[in-house]
Amino acid sequence: MTDFTAVDNYLESNLHSSLNELKTLCAQPSVAAQNLGMTETAQMVKDMLKARGFEADLYETEGYPVVIAHRQGIIDKTLLIYNHYDVQPAEPFNLWTSPPFEPEEREGKIYGRGISDDKGHFTSRLFAIDALLNVYGDLPCNVKFILEGEEEIGSVHLPQFVETHQELLAADACIWEFGGVDHRDIPLQYLGLRGICYVELSVQTAAMDVHSGLGGSLFPNAAWRLNWALSTLKDQEEHIRLPDFYDSILPPSERDLQMLSELPPVREEYQSRYGIDKFLKDYQNETELRVASVFEPTCTICGLTSGYQGPGSKTVLPAKASAKVDFRLVPNQTPTQVLKQLREHLDREGFPDVEIEFLGGGPPARTDPDHPFVKLVVETSTDAFGETMQLVPMVGGSGPNYAFVNTLNLPVVTTGIGYPGGNAHAPDENIRIDLYLKGAKHISRILHAFGQT
Amino acid sequence: MTDFTAVDNYLESNLHSSLNELKTLCAQPSVAAQNLGMTETAQMVKDMLKARGFEADLYETEGYPVVIAHRQGIIDKTLLIYNHYDVQPAEPFNLWTSPPFEPEEREGKIYGRGISDDKGHFTSRLFAIDALLNVYGDLPCNVKFILEGEEEIGSVHLPQFVETHQELLAADACIWEFGGVDHRDIPLQYLGLRGICYVELSVQTAAMDVHSGLGGSLFPNAAWRLNWALSTLKDQEEHIRLPDFYDSILPPSERDLQMLSELPPVREEYQSRYGIDKFLKDYQNETELRVASVFEPTCTICGLTSGYQGPGSKTVLPAKASAKVDFRLVPNQTPTQVLKQLREHLDREGFPDVEIEFLGGGPPARTDPDHPFVKLVVETSTDAFGETMQLVPMVGGSGPNYAFVNTLNLPVVTTGIGYPGGNAHAPDENIRIDLYLKGAKHISRILHAFGQT
Repeated sequence: MTDFTAVDNYLESNLHSSLNELKTLCAQPSVAAQNLGMTETAQMVKDMLKARGFEADLYETEGYPVVIAHRQGIIDKTLLIYNHYDVQPAEPFNLWTSPPFEPEEREGKIYGRGISDDKGHFTSRLFAIDALLNVYGDLPCNVKFILEGEEEIGSVHLPQFVETHQELLAADACIWEFGGVDHRDIPLQYLGLRGICYVELSVQTAAMDVHSGLGGSLFPNAAWRLNWALSTLKDQEEHIRLPDFYDSILPPSERDLQMLSELPPVREEYQSRYGIDKFLKDYQNETELRVASVFEPTCTICGLTSGYQGPGSKTVLPAKASAKVDFRLVPNQTPTQVLKQLREHLDREGFPDVEIEFLGGGPPARTDPDHPFVKLVVETSTDAFGETMQLVPMVGGSGPNYAFVNTLNLPVVTTGIGYPGGNAHAPDENIRIDLYLKGAKHISRILHAFGQT
Repeated sequence: MTDFTAVDNYLESNLHSSLNELKTLCAQPSVAAQNLGMTETAQMVKDMLKARGFEADLYETEGYPVVIAHRQGIIDKTLLIYNHYDVQPAEPFNLWTSPPFEPEEREGKIYGRGISDDKGHFTSRLFAIDALLNVYGDLPCNVKFILEGEEEIGSVHLPQFVETHQELLAADACIWEFGGVDHRDIPLQYLGLRGICYVELSVQTAAMDVHSGLGGSLFPNAAWRLNWALSTLKDQEEHIRLPDFYDSILPPSERDLQMLSELPPVREEYQSRYGIDKFLKDYQNETELRVASVFEPTCTICGLTSGYQGPGSKTVLPAKASAKVDFRLVPNQTPTQVLKQLREHLDREGFPDVEIEFLGGGPPARTDPDHPFVKLVVETSTDAFGETMQLVPMVGGSGPNYAFVNTLNLPVVTTGIGYPGGNAHAPDENIRIDLYLKGAKHISRILHAFGQT
């Protein structure tokens, strides 16, 4: 067994410096949805890679640029690391304890928008590379990075980019942008992601808002039209009413159910963490809850906007109303199917006036739990985290992993610095400093082992 | 017949000066819903009345102050004039051609928030008083003013104020805050107002917003809860589903139907003005449309708020959602009834988690079309407007007229400077300068005639 004392010494001695680099990156807003600081951040990321001796370039897309970097290693095998430099919007600002773009350390954690999702993962990987370069003077294998700027808005252009840059991205295995431990501090290996179809539904009923004393009696109300249309999408038993919506779904395999049943209970932990009185359904046991959380598709209203939303009252009949809605998809659903079903459904229910704008998405994708690279990542986790990774057949979130799994034909594994209290996509997003160090240790071990195989 | 040449000469010669006073008043924001400039505006209004020799005072309430003023006239009969100094919020600002609080004259009109509703009505009445004082040196009758600062937020404290200040407000007749001409330029006499019950419905399902990839499968979604709750309030045939909601309603009388049938057609005019493709129902004729517009209650969603509302996508499960909803009430419905029915309905439909906040309201109220003061106002309209006022039994809007009709026992009449293109409560609110002058002429004639009777 390799001795990682020198590598770990480096990581422990230089932690402060790596965290400072992360803070600098997080202080630079990069909100894709709001076109905030995107080019500046892409440039920063490129410079950070160049500083490690990578050849790095920005590739323009129709959206935000993709950063590609590579560096040769001792052995001619290539690990592709995927991250993203964009972050979620920070709103609502008033719910943050410290300003979202002024990273602040408190009690062993660092808070800031994007620090967990995904900038901390990126810098912890650079940190592992720093350690290997410092100790060995070289990398054990070739390493490529791909960082996109549109993950939080549905990776609109990435799949096409991967499709047309297959040679540039050619590799033997891929490390995904996220990963981390569960509430027991046991690292989890997420072998798949659900797909997503994110849409904005909008209605316009008049040329302008009208006094509700007049319009309320006579004119169609955009907010009511939207409300009624949404209410037909899903019933109160959570059944999604799109035509043939459930038809193509593959149920979980016996192996999937086995992996899920070995995972620890989460019910109570979710309830206390998120302040939930009760779950959507009365799950008979933890496995049933686990199955529901990843092997069932969803339809979520992510936002509603119409009319007057300020304090007090304004008696107005809104001319416009819109909703942001995401569908999470399971094998073998696709966004193309869902968009077609959604249009058909709205027309059939009498809502041809409700317009659908596709804001992004992709199908689900999974990696074989028996792939040798999965085994390597699990085996190296024990030494880094002090616990052995557990396999999770699929998780509820989404991402463009299908481009890497299907197009590049790579095993895609997850490891990283995430933990359940990280508040990704919410106010007070944060990372734990101890996990940041463990995550870097794991990456250094993966790279080393990959160079031996 | 009295010769109004001198009065009209004064009005025509001093129009510019009165409009300048109006512009100054409109440049002072007074948005009750946002507590913007309220005390400053109350003080301005008081000073404007004092400048005409009125005794004027601010009366504190639990909300914004009420301005009361009075001035003796030649004859000991008292006309009470009701106006309000608050205005609707100006949002959305980007839909205004010129800034809402920088009044701008364009092509015979003046644009600004509150210029029609209600500041222009107020200053046109002062302008009539200026003319009478200039020509006669005195007022023909006693005049009292009451201006409140909460009309646009449901006149929360006015009815109680009227109840406890009956002696101060004692009068023989009342002129309401608004009035004006229809699309033919014929002045209308609005003999009643619908009631209103304005509520905010809100739901909270978790302590914080959650990533929709996790929460969408397992946790209740505040936006969905709100959507489903709202969808039970009213069906797509516009039937309001609150228990016993329609039980207390008085249908229109034969006299009401007669008055409505004599009014001009509005269908095409509404369609072109507001950009409406079709009405809520297929009204068989104009009278049916007129009946629907005032003798039927409504349930209007005035605003919807939940989750992410910015550009692009954010995959979030909202912890909170809220809707602003107004119910317009017809005789003999009351807000108290509706609040009770609403709570019962939501509980019965499985939405005890939807909270109701009452933001203001009051019952409907009507004035007898055969009252002598109504006759006086109609008769004096011909000379002022060049057209004779037509009687309208009730209009769709709401206001605290019930306090004046029921508590003070006064006939309440409408006359003023409004017209259908005035965009009250909407962007580009405006008045027509020609109607401003006609409105002032009518007030001068009413005061004069009232002093003769």
